[in-house]
Amino acid sequence: MSAFITFEGPDGSGKSTICNLIYEELLKKKVNTIKTREPGGTRISEKIREIILDEDLREMDMRTEALLYSASRAQHTYEKIIPALERGITVLCERYVLSSLAYQGYARGQKIEDILSINNFATGRIKPDIVFIFRSSGVTLHRKDKSCYDRLEREPDEFHKKVRDYYNNLEKEDNYYFIDVNKSIEEVFCDCMKVLKERMVV
Amino acid sequence: MSAFITFEGPDGSGKSTICNLIYEELLKKKVNTIKTREPGGTRISEKIREIILDEDLREMDMRTEALLYSASRAQHTYEKIIPALERGITVLCERYVLSSLAYQGYARGQKIEDILSINNFATGRIKPDIVFIFRSSGVTLHRKDKSCYDRLEREPDEFHKKVRDYYNNLEKEDNYYFIDVNKSIEEVFCDCMKVLKERMVV
Repeated sequence: MSAFITFEGPDGSGKSTICNLIYEELLKKKVNTIKTREPGGTRISEKIREIILDEDLREMDMRTEALLYSASRAQHTYEKIIPALERGITVLCERYVLSSLAYQGYARGQKIEDILSINNFATGRIKPDIVFIFRSSGVTLHRKDKSCYDRLEREPDEFHKKVRDYYNNLEKEDNYYFIDVNKSIEEVFCDCMKVLKERMVV
Repeated sequence: MSAFITFEGPDGSGKSTICNLIYEELLKKKVNTIKTREPGGTRISEKIREIILDEDLREMDMRTEALLYSASRAQHTYEKIIPALERGITVLCERYVLSSLAYQGYARGQKIEDILSINNFATGRIKPDIVFIFRSSGVTLHRKDKSCYDRLEREPDEFHKKVRDYYNNLEKEDNYYFIDVNKSIEEVFCDCMKVLKERMVV
């Protein structure tokens, strides 16, 4: 049976690294899997991503930003995620609706229910089976040279602290799995694999 | 006092022509006026417009399309329309929220209340003072060679008939002015100017 698995957390919390490791592991175990990411994941979503992250477009209104993320997500969901799940393929996705609630909602100071509402329209309320929420106590975002930061990464530390707070204060829901990332990559990977075994993905 | 005036109606119903004539007339009468259009109207909105109308992107989901129009509208509203009105400038705008209700809602078969809801988020519910709704009984869309049609214009006749039906069946609201465009350009222009005089724009 296929599963829809998302990875959520602040920039630099290790989502890509862990997602890649899990992807390799699932393939090794013959689980039919694809790996994708947001914003992006389809031809149209990548075009939208270019606008969202263009660090030259600093006049972008926060409502525009939220709607562009939703537009990219709608295309990704209906063109790629849902068709894969319907064909029995497990989907690993870096970032999904929670990222918009954290960044465009909480950190930008827009109403969470408004952001949720446009995302419900975008996704048809599809719910991931497993949401890995990466939590760290320290400052993250240490992965690359500041000169290559995109429009969102260039936001001040206060913005990224709010994003971290949002993830750290989320209340448990039945598909949420909180992962402490103040550990080695190996340990984080093992914690995630334990969940996948419990939930019988592997 | 500034006014926010929008022009709505099917493709080829003469919105551009009339909007241009009114713009010239208002300038002649020393009314401080700008003329703009959707999708587009700002640097970011024009980039979004390119994606929306790209006739190569035929895999675009109807939810993506609706969200992209809203994103473009949010930027246009907050960067251009609201600041102009606040400075006492009258704004003439070709297409606004009603176009999304007609095209992305009624003609695509999506719920009108869903499309209205994402547009309310995009515009902060700003309401035009005057909405000119161009109505025609016949088939429109005769203005250019089919080989230069964009993604939306390429939709089948049935789609464009639905758009026309939507505009033709709208019930009167206090800011709606229905304009019969089965007349000469001169007559249509006079009918619009009569409204602007009544509403003391000129």
